[in-house]
Amino acid sequence: MEDCIFCKIIKGEIPSFKVYEDDMVFAFEDINPIAEGHTLVIPKEHAKDLGEVSNESLSAVHKASKKILDAIKRALQPTGVVAVQLNGESVGQSIFHYHLHLIPRLKNAPRLPVAQMKMIPGDMEQIEKTAEKIRNSVI
Amino acid sequence: MEDCIFCKIIKGEIPSFKVYEDDMVFAFEDINPIAEGHTLVIPKEHAKDLGEVSNESLSAVHKASKKILDAIKRALQPTGVVAVQLNGESVGQSIFHYHLHLIPRLKNAPRLPVAQMKMIPGDMEQIEKTAEKIRNSVI
Repeated sequence: MEDCIFCKIIKGEIPSFKVYEDDMVFAFEDINPIAEGHTLVIPKEHAKDLGEVSNESLSAVHKASKKILDAIKRALQPTGVVAVQLNGESVGQSIFHYHLHLIPRLKNAPRLPVAQMKMIPGDMEQIEKTAEKIRNSVI
Repeated sequence: MEDCIFCKIIKGEIPSFKVYEDDMVFAFEDINPIAEGHTLVIPKEHAKDLGEVSNESLSAVHKASKKILDAIKRALQPTGVVAVQLNGESVGQSIFHYHLHLIPRLKNAPRLPVAQMKMIPGDMEQIEKTAEKIRNSVI
């Protein structure tokens, strides 16, 4: 897409710190990294988010993410890696071209805010109702 | 795997609030939800994390996640949805069976901690060096 910064990066019109490329996928370092080795994996096809991306691109991105995860492990020896993908401005998506963040946590590095999920037991009746709503909405 | 809680959920040995199932994938509500509609999408194949999961299961999980995203949108009208997948105890993985969290943010709900990524420009020389290390480690 003409005005998409990630499409321009793929085409080489904007420089990037590329780490991987294949027919369908491009991967490069985030220039606003929340940790060393913060990498973005994107489909070459322009698609806004998970709702829009084709199954073919989605498979290609995640297959590539395994290769890149392995490379990050070899290069940086992280203790763990978070994979996160945001859909919608209200949850922090800022570039509207599907992108998977791979964020390693290196040894002795601080905890990653993205990985903060407190284990607080939910209200089982409420969860059951919500499950039913979602289940009944699957097409 | 015998001692895996998610394998037991798939087999029905432990009850769950199921929202979706196909040949390769099972999805259910997280009982420690960080938001209403917090859903887990898992491969039926036991695999610890992204490093271990097969490409086939990975594709199936993400293809299913699109369907479930659509269902969550229809059921709950979220303003956005975070997809997050943790690899390693140090980044908060607590069940060692690959699982993709789909976490909707409903209208007027508080910001999701998982989506907190501050845009702080990095050190470009450092990023370039890290990119080179990762790029050279891709097999």
